Parts: sequence; structure tokens; C-alpha cells
Amino acid sequence: MGIRGSLRIMEKNKVKRGFGSDNNAGIHPDILKEIISSNTGHVIGYGADVYTEQALNIFKEHFGSYSETYFVFTGTAANVLGLSGITRSWNSIITASTAHLEGDECGAPEKFIGCKVLVADTPDGKITPELIEKHMHGLDFEHHSQPKVISITQATEMGTVYTVAEITKIASFAHAGGMLLHMDGARIANAAVALNLPFKAFTTEAGVDVLSFGGTKNGMMFGESICFLKPGLSFDFKYIRKQGMQLASKMRFISAQYIGYFRNDLWKSNASNSNAMARMLDEQLKQIPEVKVTQEVQSNGVFVRMPADVAEKMRDHYFFYPWDEKRSEFRLMCSWDTKKEDIEDFIRILKKELEK
Amino acid sequence: MGIRGSLRIMEKNKVKRGFGSDNNAGIHPDILKEIISSNTGHVIGYGADVYTEQALNIFKEHFGSYSETYFVFTGTAANVLGLSGITRSWNSIITASTAHLEGDECGAPEKFIGCKVLVADTPDGKITPELIEKHMHGLDFEHHSQPKVISITQATEMGTVYTVAEITKIASFAHAGGMLLHMDGARIANAAVALNLPFKAFTTEAGVDVLSFGGTKNGMMFGESICFLKPGLSFDFKYIRKQGMQLASKMRFISAQYIGYFRNDLWKSNASNSNAMARMLDEQLKQIPEVKVTQEVQSNGVFVRMPADVAEKMRDHYFFYPWDEKRSEFRLMCSWDTKKEDIEDFIRILKKELEK
Amino acid sequence: MGIRGSLRIMEKNKVKRGFGSDNNAGIHPDILKEIISSNTGHVIGYGADVYTEQALNIFKEHFGSYSETYFVFTGTAANVLGLSGITRSWNSIITASTAHLEGDECGAPEKFIGCKVLVADTPDGKITPELIEKHMHGLDFEHHSQPKVISITQATEMGTVYTVAEITKIASFAHAGGMLLHMDGARIANAAVALNLPFKAFTTEAGVDVLSFGGTKNGMMFGESICFLKPGLSFDFKYIRKQGMQLASKMRFISAQYIGYFRNDLWKSNASNSNAMARMLDEQLKQIPEVKVTQEVQSNGVFVRMPADVAEKMRDHYFFYPWDEKRSEFRLMCSWDTKKEDIEDFIRILKKELEK
Amino acid sequence: MGIRGSLRIMEKNKVKRGFGSDNNAGIHPDILKEIISSNTGHVIGYGADVYTEQALNIFKEHFGSYSETYFVFTGTAANVLGLSGITRSWNSIITASTAHLEGDECGAPEKFIGCKVLVADTPDGKITPELIEKHMHGLDFEHHSQPKVISITQATEMGTVYTVAEITKIASFAHAGGMLLHMDGARIANAAVALNLPFKAFTTEAGVDVLSFGGTKNGMMFGESICFLKPGLSFDFKYIRKQGMQLASKMRFISAQYIGYFRNDLWKSNASNSNAMARMLDEQLKQIPEVKVTQEVQSNGVFVRMPADVAEKMRDHYFFYPWDEKRSEFRLMCSWDTKKEDIEDFIRILKKELEK
Repeated sequence: MGIRGSLRIMEKNKVKRGFGSDNNAGIHPDILKEIISSNTGHVIGYGADVYTEQALNIFKEHFGSYSETYFVFTGTAANVLGLSGITRSWNSIITASTAHLEGDECGAPEKFIGCKVLVADTPDGKITPELIEKHMHGLDFEHHSQPKVISITQATEMGTVYTVAEITKIASFAHAGGMLLHMDGARIANAAVALNLPFKAFTTEAGVDVLSFGGTKNGMMFGESICFLKPGLSFDFKYIRKQGMQLASKMRFISAQYIGYFRNDLWKSNASNSNAMARMLDEQLKQIPEVKVTQEVQSNGVFVRMPADVAEKMRDHYFFYPWDEKRSEFRLMCSWDTKKEDIEDFIRILKKELEK
Repeated sequence: MGIRGSLRIMEKNKVKRGFGSDNNAGIHPDILKEIISSNTGHVIGYGADVYTEQALNIFKEHFGSYSETYFVFTGTAANVLGLSGITRSWNSIITASTAHLEGDECGAPEKFIGCKVLVADTPDGKITPELIEKHMHGLDFEHHSQPKVISITQATEMGTVYTVAEITKIASFAHAGGMLLHMDGARIANAAVALNLPFKAFTTEAGVDVLSFGGTKNGMMFGESICFLKPGLSFDFKYIRKQGMQLASKMRFISAQYIGYFRNDLWKSNASNSNAMARMLDEQLKQIPEVKVTQEVQSNGVFVRMPADVAEKMRDHYFFYPWDEKRSEFRLMCSWDTKKEDIEDFIRILKKELEK
Repeated sequence: MGIRGSLRIMEKNKVKRGFGSDNNAGIHPDILKEIISSNTGHVIGYGADVYTEQALNIFKEHFGSYSETYFVFTGTAANVLGLSGITRSWNSIITASTAHLEGDECGAPEKFIGCKVLVADTPDGKITPELIEKHMHGLDFEHHSQPKVISITQATEMGTVYTVAEITKIASFAHAGGMLLHMDGARIANAAVALNLPFKAFTTEAGVDVLSFGGTKNGMMFGESICFLKPGLSFDFKYIRKQGMQLASKMRFISAQYIGYFRNDLWKSNASNSNAMARMLDEQLKQIPEVKVTQEVQSNGVFVRMPADVAEKMRDHYFFYPWDEKRSEFRLMCSWDTKKEDIEDFIRILKKELEK
Repeated sequence: MGIRGSLRIMEKNKVKRGFGSDNNAGIHPDILKEIISSNTGHVIGYGADVYTEQALNIFKEHFGSYSETYFVFTGTAANVLGLSGITRSWNSIITASTAHLEGDECGAPEKFIGCKVLVADTPDGKITPELIEKHMHGLDFEHHSQPKVISITQATEMGTVYTVAEITKIASFAHAGGMLLHMDGARIANAAVALNLPFKAFTTEAGVDVLSFGGTKNGMMFGESICFLKPGLSFDFKYIRKQGMQLASKMRFISAQYIGYFRNDLWKSNASNSNAMARMLDEQLKQIPEVKVTQEVQSNGVFVRMPADVAEKMRDHYFFYPWDEKRSEFRLMCSWDTKKEDIEDFIRILKKELEK
């Protein structure tokens, strides 16, 4: 059975579809093809192969010739190892209370770096110098972890997107205080589409120092990357990746995926679809008085309050996660393969359930 | 281009072939097919999917119904996280001086577990209670790291294979001293073929407590697993895997590979080929007086001394690594896709070079 | 020069006196005497000596016969190592935002345990089940650090003191959720005096599981202890202490201090003095309209807002630290050796400065 | 009871005397006096006091004006934190198989630094470039921990002493390979006396980069120091010490001890005594045919083989530790307070026991 056969099966299994997470979707066929075409002959392991060379060059095109990129397996690893390269254990990393880094990595930053993660409360997933300010004390005081990195998520865990101006402002604040700016770009493609800007414009050029560049949530099988956007930051990083258990022996199969991801701007069409589907969902939900969209929909996630019993019934049809059970708030994520019919069907069933 | 097209390209790229490592080979087509056929619809991430359920059941068939298996990305992670589950930082892990754990993981055990790795010198990669004995002191003495795990590699890094009796003896020694037995099975399939035994016979039934079960070196794309073979050992392990940055979001694509790996005993035919090719290489090399095979060839690796200048010329044709440059010793690894013609060609060129 | 000579010098150096911290005071003479009298002959190192035996027995009298106590050097070590004994890296420790553990240990818990420290905001240094509740989510969910310990400080960093009822309530909450209760008792003597209760009544009997029992801030030279108040908690702890670099070779000189500390209830007279002096300071400050005491004075610390320029001038006479510079709030700590004249003098000068 | 009273008791307790360890002895009276005289008034905690200032200046006199010294509590901490300042987790530290760092710190270097400790076997506790050489491979290879520090012990754990030429040779070897030289000077005073050289001559001037300068084994109560002998090495070290739980709040009482330790070269007279006593013990033992001194006696330790049953009886009179029970080898350590009569008495009883 070839790729086409595989796609036919996907069609028939609509019943499994849902809004649980953008990583519940599979691999985009063009990426699978690239894996297949790289699966030829022997190549040296651990990244000394032509596919990795080609993929890394693509990253240089996108992020600047002085950027240095390293591939790893997971988004958690991209965040933790990237941060590990620019912090020491006596530093603190300041991030949003909603950040994946804080709440969804089971303490991996603390375990691997040994440092403190400090949070700024934020209603919409975005932080600002004003919110960060409260952690800027005890400087040069040995009893206190020294702030070293600000980490922002783009697009945020709440589906919102930082503007270039907002990022530049945080970067200036960070650099003025001798700190660095890290961006968790697990959904960076969705942000790029939302901003209608090339990656560079809101990363390298906006003052970001280290970036986790995600792919898995936007159609890849696995594989994330860490992009050091300023010279000198990745010194010794190859040891951090290996000791961090993230050096792939058959690296070509991450690299090949990235080649496919960037070819014909696949990343853009994938993210455009998921963003558009979220927008459509948002618009449709806003027509229904019994439910309330709680966050501005700027990328591919929709946060919505609906009656708990209705939500439970909806999950018989489409899988999705509760976000805040006390508030009866749910998260609906759209993927590269979400279709108009998914949205229409979801809304149709929802209305029916609400009428009961 | 489908799988067949891909295989055609592989044929044409013979020039890239070599004996560098079994991970320089690509993915076996049957495993790729399984990935493709699992790439359908949405499934819940992080392992709560039908493919993972199926794959984990297969592991129970092979290792016993009380065994518990967890998938991770790399062999280093399988070793380090598996050991992490059964040690504390004040313990020591005793292993062979040749072990991957000691020399090829950039200190990942020390970093992640914070414990001491103690080595026993061994000429052939295998350790025995006698060799381990020297580290069995300072027991119950707080100044001294407490021995907790013996780790053996099967097949060893030197291509040798432990017999069931040898493993049982080490297990008894370990358990009598309140320790556990860990097996690094990065090449366990090659050992099973060499011993002509089911996995269980020289793991669970021989007293092994925790196993790293490799797949990547025998035809998979990526993905290794940690098998806790005794009840109660994997308590809390799910947190260790997540905090260890090794929880795959699109887990189905590791699981699907394992399904393919076990279907029709693909693991066995792959390992049988690489073992047979190594045996053939061994036999041919032994006919050549100018070179010397230095280890007994029991799995898929051949260690051979040859003149350094000849070795350098050989590497224009077939890539392989030096093992001990001072002794002019080299390592030749055979893979699931190594062919008779590779061996014949290699030997032919070698003889020619030696004649010069 | 003997002890008496030393005390004479202390008298003459009044100029150095202040309210900087209770650790700016020296060693109580009775403790020094005990050190001197233990300085005789040879004893086995690392705690196998008669002084340590005697001191540990005293702890059993105070905390119950099943309690197990270990001496270390610093309060940070007492907190971090004690917590290390009852947590794993994937756990979280929940504490007050004002806790020493959070803000004054330079990330030592994160470094040594590798776990997450989560904070509950509190105006007065005390936390309650209601404040802790917000961190009780994601249970059994591998993406989330699992709450394992609640840590309270007694007396708190804000000078307030938990009642037995408050402690019991937190302990019940902790235990009902499968968690443990840790108490940072850096100033536990001050709390005992404030509550007018034996130590046991608000620790062991109130449900505390692990206690950091301080001495340095109440007249000792150095040395803190970790008391495991429930059986079974200190299993393997001797290795944690040694690996934590806190095993004293000449242990007798910590033990001797504790012998002196408990003899004739020296701890009580010392803490009674510092508490009384703080109360006196509080009363006097409340007579002055230009300044405002911001926390209820229940132990030996007084928090007070005063004009910044006045505070600066006061520090020419008596050293003390700012607490919150933005609010012009300062912390005045009383010690075992603070005298009525210190308070009277401080108040007199303060009034004069305020008049200017 | 004053110091004199204390000394009288010490006389009467001869029964407790022994050769267990130089840390089984107490505090030299001159050091106690210095503690007492610093116990006056209030001083700012954590090292911002006049005693610490004075003590640190003395270190600059001994080790050079560009040296930077930090006080900690234990020898293990001095080693681990000092090394922590100059390594990263992907480095390896190469030391002697007999080193305290390897065998007597319960894995503290691995826990705190996360790095690998590699050992060179040595019969006499000393290592050489030739012995170290075997670990100098895998350079720049990410799979392999990168050698960064060579650590030697002076005097060694076997009682031997490196010459200046030997140290210089190792330093040159280290520096030529981009590595640093660390010296564990737990018994550095004994080495200085043995070499009849100032400290600087065989540390700073011989190429040592970082030094653990011990005091506890030579008459102090507690307190060791870390001396960074080259500029730029101690950058950020204050955070390492605090996070390492080794920042003393009442720092003056370590500093005062060092003031006493250097005053009138007390360190020298103490170490001269213990060295001389060891020499005397060595000479006497060599007269006895039934026992065999196994190491050259160059500092204050004597290693001797004697019949196990005799050793057991001797321990009724004088406590000492077995070194290698299989070889019936024992370690006899002399202290600053060991007396001629101790040696004479020990030899007398030994002869009597051997005659039985």
C-alpha cells in the first residue's frame, strides 16, 4: 500500500477525527514522501549526511547565515536543551504562567538545568516587561537565582500571537538587563501565517536569541529544532544534545522531514489551513449564544466555555480536552488536516445538543 | 515515488554502502509500510492509541505478561531512563569498560541519574562476577556509592554474545547482593539469532530485571524501548520518561514500527542477515594473512587489525570506523541490508590493496 | 583570653550592634563552653561519637522516640536535603511565595532535587489549604509535576506564627492528598516561645513529617538538623547527606552545641529574649505616627515602613535590611543578645531623625 | 571551664587516642581562642565581616594577589564546588583510582556536576601524564565526555607527596591539552612541611589552577577553602557556593579559624608534628619483622600490613581503620596532637601482641 492508499484510509476514518491537539493528526503525505526518498543506501549517522546538510542550509536561509540549528526529537527537548545552552543552574528563566515550559514538561527544565522557572501571570498567554518586572530583583545577590532568560511562546498556548513590536519590546527589556530572549515556537508556523511575515521578521530580526522551532504539530512525524540566532550561543551545544539523549542516530529522517516541510512552503499551507479552520470555528461558535469563546482566536486554537454536559456529549463525536474544568472551558485545536466539514459537522451537532 | 521507487534508488547508491555502523543503514521497507498504514486519521497523542496498545501487547508476549514496556527515541535514553527508574544518585552502576553506557553517552547517566558508573576491564566486552567483585566494597558505608545495578550489553560492543548460563550467573550474583541486572539490548536481535533462542529465554527467564530493547540498529527508523521485566519496577516511570524529554507526542509512529518489526519475525530475518554477513566477512578475512580478526565473531560486528595505510584506502570504497588507532584495529559492522556482494567486493579490493 | 574576656569585648563593640539578622549575633557563651568541653581527646569522625549520641537522644526526647535526626551545616542544606529525602525530581513542592526555600536559596532545591517549587501568594507568610488548592491539578498526569510536599515556615519569614490548628489543617490536607508536610524551622524556637508550647506539640503531634530544626539563628555557631518525624522516611538518608556534602567530619562540634542549646532550655531563654525585644520594638514603633508596622509581630522580626531617607540615616547607627524598597519597608530582626538599651537607643535616634 | 581546663581533660582521656584519622583529633587551642575572640558583637553575615576580610587577605599573601578564595564547610564540598566552577556536565575529570574524589564522596561530583570521573590506576596514589594518557581520546567527539580537569591529591591518600617537578609536569600536560589542574589539598600542610616549601611554590607557581585548601585535618574545627589561583576562574562562583548549600551565615567563625591557623605558622607546627610522628612510627615499624610498611611515608599516614588478629587486638588500645582487608593492610594516621608516647606505647603493645 502506497501513500495514496494510506490517504484513502484516512478519509474513511473520519470517526476518529477531533480537536484534541494538533499532534493528534498524522504526517502530511509530502513529508512521508521525503522520508521515503531519503531511505536509500547508507549514510553516516548522527547528522553527517547530505540530507542534514541540506536541511540545515534551509534553516540558515530562514534565520540568517550566522544562525546555528540543531535537531532533536521533542518540543520539550527543544525547549529544555536550548535553554540549557544559555543558562546555568543558578539562573532563573522567566515565563508566562500558561507556558508549556512551566506546566507541561513535568519539571524537565528544573531537572536538566537545575534552575528556577519563575512565572508571570497572564490572562492571554502573553507576557510583557511590566509583568516580568516583579522578578527583576535580587540582582548580583548570591542568595537569589539570577534572571537570565525570558521565554515567550509564539503562538501562545492560549492561541494568541505576539506582534513584532511586542517581541522587540521584550527583547530590548531582556538585553538591557543582560538577559536573553527565548521563543518556544512549537506553533511558530501558525504565528507566521497569522502575522503574514517570514519567520526571520519576528525572530532573528526582532531580537530573539534562541528559538525552539516546531514541526510535529504542523504535519511532521517527529523532530523539532533548536535555532541559536546569535553567533556564539551554541558553543558546546553538541555535547548538551548528546548528553541530553537527543542525538538521533538516523538523523537523515528528521532532516528529510524538514526538507519536505519547507519545500513549496508546505509549513505555510498546513498552518494556513489550521488557522483558517480555527477562525471558521470561532465565527460559528460566536453565533451560538449558549457558548462563549474566551480568547481572541489568532492562530489554530479556540478556547470556549460550554455547558459541561453538552461538552461531554460532544466528545462522543469529536475528541477534545477540557482546559479549566471549574470554568467549564474547553480547548479546540485545529490541525493541518482539519476540514470545513469537520467544523460544520461539529457546529451542527453542538447546536443539536444545546437544543435538547 | 512509492516504496519500490525508493528501493531502486537504494540499489543505485551502492557507492554509499559501508560497514560504518548498523545505524548507517536505512529503514526496512516493511517497517516503512507500517508507518504509512498507521498514518490515518486522528489518534490521541502520547501513547493512548490503538497502535501503541497493539505494540505493547506484542512486548508482553515476548517478555511475559507482567513485563511493562515504554517507548523512547534513542538507545542512550533507553539505557539512562531505564537505569534511572531503578537507581538513586548515591548508587553505582557497574558495567564493562567497553560499554556504550560508559564510553559513548557523553556522561548522560551521570548527568541524568547523578550516580557513579564503575567499570570492569574486559578483553571481549563481557563481564563476570569475578570482574565485578572488585567494586563490591564499602557496602552500607555512607562515604561510598552503593552498588545497585550491573549492566551488561547483549550482544556486546565487541560483537560477542553472553550465553544463558553466563547471564544467569551474573543475575544470581546481582540479586544475592541486593542488586539488579540491566541489559543494554541495542543489538539484542543479533544476540537472539546467535543464541537461536527467543528473547525471553536470555532475558526474563535468565534473571534480567530491566532491558533496553533496540530496534534502530536492526531496520527501524527510530525508537527504542525500556522493558521492566519484573513487577513493581516501573512504578512512576511515566514521569521519568516525560521529564527525560522522551515522551513522543505522535507515539503511534514508534508503535507502528514495532508492529512491523515483530510481524513475520522481521527482526529475526534482519538480524540473521547481518549476523550471516559478519560471519562471511570473518571467514574471508581469516584467509588473508596480513590481517587479523581480534574478537570472536558472534553477532554482526567484526574487529580486525590491518595496516593503517590499507585501511585508509579501503575507506575510499567502504566507510568504516577505527576502533583502536594505536593497534591499527578497525570495526566492521554488518546491517540488515548488507549483501554478499558487499562482502565479496570488500574482500576483493582489500586483497588488491594488500598486494600493492 | 577566656570566655569572660570575650564577653567584655562584646560589650565594648556596641557600635556594631544592629537588627540586620538574627545570624549577625555571635555564639551564646554556654554553647561555646560546650564546644570547649567536648574538645578533648580523639573521637571517631562523622558522628560515631558520644556527643552525637547524646545530642540525638535529646532530639528523640523532644520529637518522639521514632523520630530520626541528622545534623548538617546550614539551613539551606537542612531544607534541601530533608526535602530530597521525601521527593523525586518529578514532584513539586508547594510553599509560600515568601518562603526562604523559594527566594533565598539560589535555586538549591531545583539544583539538588531537580523538582519544581510552586508558590502560593500570601500576605503574611502563612499558607492555607485554600491557597495551596490552585496547584492541586494534573494529578496522575505525566505532563505535570506531581505535588508531593507542602512546606511551611515556622515562625514565617514575615515574623508570623502558625497555630497548632492551622498546622493540623494543612497536615490533614497534605496527607489526604498523598502528600507530606515539611516545616522549615529555622526560627522554630521563636515559634515555640510564641505559642508557649513544647516543640512536639506543633510538629510531630500536629502532623509534620519532616522538620528543619534551626539553631544558628538562636545562638549556635553553625549546625542545623533534619528531623524525620515519622518512621520510614529517613531510609537511605545517610547517603543523601554525604552526597549532599553535609557530613561533618568533626561532628562532635555540632552535637556539643546542641547539647548546650538544650541544657537548661537555653533555646527558650534565647528565643524568649529575641521575641520580647521584638515585641518591645513593635510597641515603641507603634507610638510613632510617621512609621507603620506592617506585620503582626509574633516572633522576633518587625517589619516597618519608614521614610527612606530616615532609614538610611538610621543605618549609620544600627544595621538592618530593606525588605521592599518600593514600599519603603524594612525588616528589623532581634537576636538572643538584643538588649532593651538597643531598642531604646534605636527608638530615641529614630524619633530624633524623624523630627529633623 | 576555660581552654586550659579543656586541655587538662584531653590529657586524661588518653584512652580515646588513636590513629583512625587526622580528623579524630580535636581543635587546636590557638584556633579555639581565635573563635572566642571573634565572638564579639554583631557582624554582617555570609562573609561581609572584618574577620573574613582579614582571612582572605592572608590567602592572597600565600597564593598570590590574583588568587580568589572562598570558604566552605567540608572537604567534599571544597572539591566538588571548586571543580563545579571549572567544568560542565559533559566534561570528565581524571583522577587517581585512590582519590577521595572517586571513592569517598558517595558520588557527590557526579550528582552535583553531572560529569564523569575517570580514574587512572596508581600504586602509590600519584598519577602521571603517562597514566592519564589513556583517557585522552574521543576529543571533540560529542559521544564522549570531554576531559577538562586533572585532579591530584597533595599529600595523596597513600601518604605520598608530589614533587614540584611532578606537579609542573602534570600541569603542563593539562594545559597543553586545554585542561586545568585541580589539587585536593585536604592535607596540603603536611605536603608543604614534607617538601619544606611555601604553599605557593607547589601550587600557584607549579601551575595548579584550583585548590581545595584543607584545615580540618590539621587542627581546625571545620572549614575548608577553595582557592582559584588564576584570574577569571571564579566568575559566578558565589552562586555555586550558595546553591551548593555551603555559604556559612556566621562566616566569621570559619575566617577566625583560618586567622588562627596562619598566625605564627600554626599550620606548620601542627603538620610538622603529625609528619614527624608518622616518620617515627614508620621507623619503629620497620624494626619489626612481622609487619610491613607498604608505602613510602612522606607525610602523616603510615600504611602497614600486619596479621589480622593482631590488628584486631591493637584496636582495643588504639583505634585505626583497615585499608585493604584482603591484604591485611591498615592505615595509621598521625595528627597535630599525636605524641611520642602514643607511638612508643603503640609499638610496645604491638610487639607484645606479636610475641603471643
